[in-house]
Amino acid sequence: MQDQIPDATSLQLRSVITPDGKVVLSLVKEPVPALRPEEVLVRVEATPINPSDIGLMLGAADLSRAWIADGAGGPELVAPVPAESLKAMESRRAASTPVGLEGAGTVVAAGSSHAAQSLMGRTVAAMAGGMYARYRCIPAAECLVLPEGTTAAQAASCFVNPLTALGMIETARSEGHTAIVQTAAASNLGQILLRLCLADDIPLVNVVRSEQQAELLREQGARFVCNSSSDDFREQLTDAIAATGATLVLDPIGGGSGGQILSCMEAAINRRPGQAVSRYGSDVLKQLYVYGALDPRPIEIPRDVGMAWAAGGWLLLRYLKVTPQQTLERLKARVAAEITTTFASRYARCVSLAEFISPEVLNICARPATGRKFLIEPWKDC
Amino acid sequence: MQDQIPDATSLQLRSVITPDGKVVLSLVKEPVPALRPEEVLVRVEATPINPSDIGLMLGAADLSRAWIADGAGGPELVAPVPAESLKAMESRRAASTPVGLEGAGTVVAAGSSHAAQSLMGRTVAAMAGGMYARYRCIPAAECLVLPEGTTAAQAASCFVNPLTALGMIETARSEGHTAIVQTAAASNLGQILLRLCLADDIPLVNVVRSEQQAELLREQGARFVCNSSSDDFREQLTDAIAATGATLVLDPIGGGSGGQILSCMEAAINRRPGQAVSRYGSDVLKQLYVYGALDPRPIEIPRDVGMAWAAGGWLLLRYLKVTPQQTLERLKARVAAEITTTFASRYARCVSLAEFISPEVLNICARPATGRKFLIEPWKDC
Repeated sequence: MQDQIPDATSLQLRSVITPDGKVVLSLVKEPVPALRPEEVLVRVEATPINPSDIGLMLGAADLSRAWIADGAGGPELVAPVPAESLKAMESRRAASTPVGLEGAGTVVAAGSSHAAQSLMGRTVAAMAGGMYARYRCIPAAECLVLPEGTTAAQAASCFVNPLTALGMIETARSEGHTAIVQTAAASNLGQILLRLCLADDIPLVNVVRSEQQAELLREQGARFVCNSSSDDFREQLTDAIAATGATLVLDPIGGGSGGQILSCMEAAINRRPGQAVSRYGSDVLKQLYVYGALDPRPIEIPRDVGMAWAAGGWLLLRYLKVTPQQTLERLKARVAAEITTTFASRYARCVSLAEFISPEVLNICARPATGRKFLIEPWKDC
Repeated sequence: MQDQIPDATSLQLRSVITPDGKVVLSLVKEPVPALRPEEVLVRVEATPINPSDIGLMLGAADLSRAWIADGAGGPELVAPVPAESLKAMESRRAASTPVGLEGAGTVVAAGSSHAAQSLMGRTVAAMAGGMYARYRCIPAAECLVLPEGTTAAQAASCFVNPLTALGMIETARSEGHTAIVQTAAASNLGQILLRLCLADDIPLVNVVRSEQQAELLREQGARFVCNSSSDDFREQLTDAIAATGATLVLDPIGGGSGGQILSCMEAAINRRPGQAVSRYGSDVLKQLYVYGALDPRPIEIPRDVGMAWAAGGWLLLRYLKVTPQQTLERLKARVAAEITTTFASRYARCVSLAEFISPEVLNICARPATGRKFLIEPWKDC
């Protein structure tokens, strides 16, 4: 089947940490490998820039001191890593990593197996790593097959955000929480969580940082929105928690963000009529999951939350590891069915692979902000 | 049976918060109630002063401004509550609370049931509340019956510390941890945990604040002791964690105490040969349980612990509620069998009920320090 491929050479974005402590991003021409029977070759047409991609590519590199160098295969981006951060990146030193967690495209060649052959010509999405490339060779079983008519741009973000949102909701349900508070609610993931909770009738309290973000979410049907920059934020939040009965916080920020919400939850619980109050606080368990580190400072849990509290990291990769295959298949099927509605992502801009590794674009992508998600189109010329 | 009691009047230590915001501790003469068939009357001969007793008795009252007043039934201790703390104590306002969580003594009268009658003359311990008294009427089923020859002083602390230690070890086992780090290791509870881990062959890393405390624990057989005031504390601790494979922290302090240990655990895990390191940290779950608040500042979790971490409150009362009766019976039987060895408590001083409510004694008890645990002997004259 190999000879059906119009161009047998791919272009792959790679990140390497040099022995002298610099991160180098380059576009490397690589031959497309021969397909095994169960594999398909995907012509990658759209692949999103997630915060985790930026983290994997750049680590602690200092973008403000980055420059463009002439590499063997074209322009390269070089960014120095501050000495104090080099130790943390030790394990990756000198290893060249293909980057790009997820993406979508068309199956243009297939191995001999029936499973692989049946995907020929279809639009598929995958979270195979190395997706910042023109071609990617992927086991058929790992492909999420989209309904006919779905574009690659629509399918690009099928995994990271949709499965994180679905996984967190599954976690909430399995642990007995009936309502949720989320921070950074105006983010792409936050908006997916909002649509998911609206669809599944789960009361959701949305915490945002500005009136503009609050308005954006209200327009999308959000009933409870609290603006953390308003003077009566704590009061607003406690009221919303009391109205919904929320006992779970989903927080991509860290620092003091989640702990203050646990504290408002405890206050809301103690308002309930007949609630027994002891010096150990209420006996209702309040849970915080931290799934990002937008604030790099230590996570803080104030002591007015009582003794019935728990906190922990929530990581998609871990969730995928510990969850039964059957559950994951159910979640993936839902993503495919609702990719243009519940799980739709919006992109502020489409860039080529070469544009992406310019300091100008990377600087924007490295500072996540509402409505700033970018999409890479690997076949776009620049 | 009631007429067999030599003195039908008890003396009960009560705490009340007056409408104008003062805590009043007084010794109240109360008639001994008639026994129900399943109850026994315990002549309370020894009852310990736990930090939780002090908390329940005094709340946020300011001991430095306390005075002794002439009450209806004798001297009373009066301590004002700072205005800013009154709201937190609102729920208890004007309610008179009998205090004293646990204690031990002799069964001097029994209801008509076989269970109650069989305890006549035995030394029993109970966690019935209101134990700072000369007599306490208790259901026979709630009594822990000690082996013949056990004194009330030996049996006084059968519940709070032994069951906390046993409960935390059960929690550790059920969650798959094979080695433990404890802070405040020289405390009464810390020493019980040490003996329990030695008996059960569970590797334990003990964190203390001084060389003197370290010596105390080494004399008792502790193999891993780290002194948090030494310059190379972090290194010592990481080495001990690496040697034991500890993944659970038991911490009565709060503040930054437990979080820094999670961080050392992550460092120790990443030293393991072949340990895969990703930007999300190791995939080994590190758990922190906070069971006290010696440091009232917010609990801090630094971000260098990776994503596989969890933290939460651990509370004996909650553990007792959620644990099957059969397990609890097993744990209690072990306490009774090992009360003079594994679960032995030492007391710095024995006081009468009247001595206890003097500012001098309360001031010592309110500031827990190693080797300063006091025992009340309600029949002692003063």
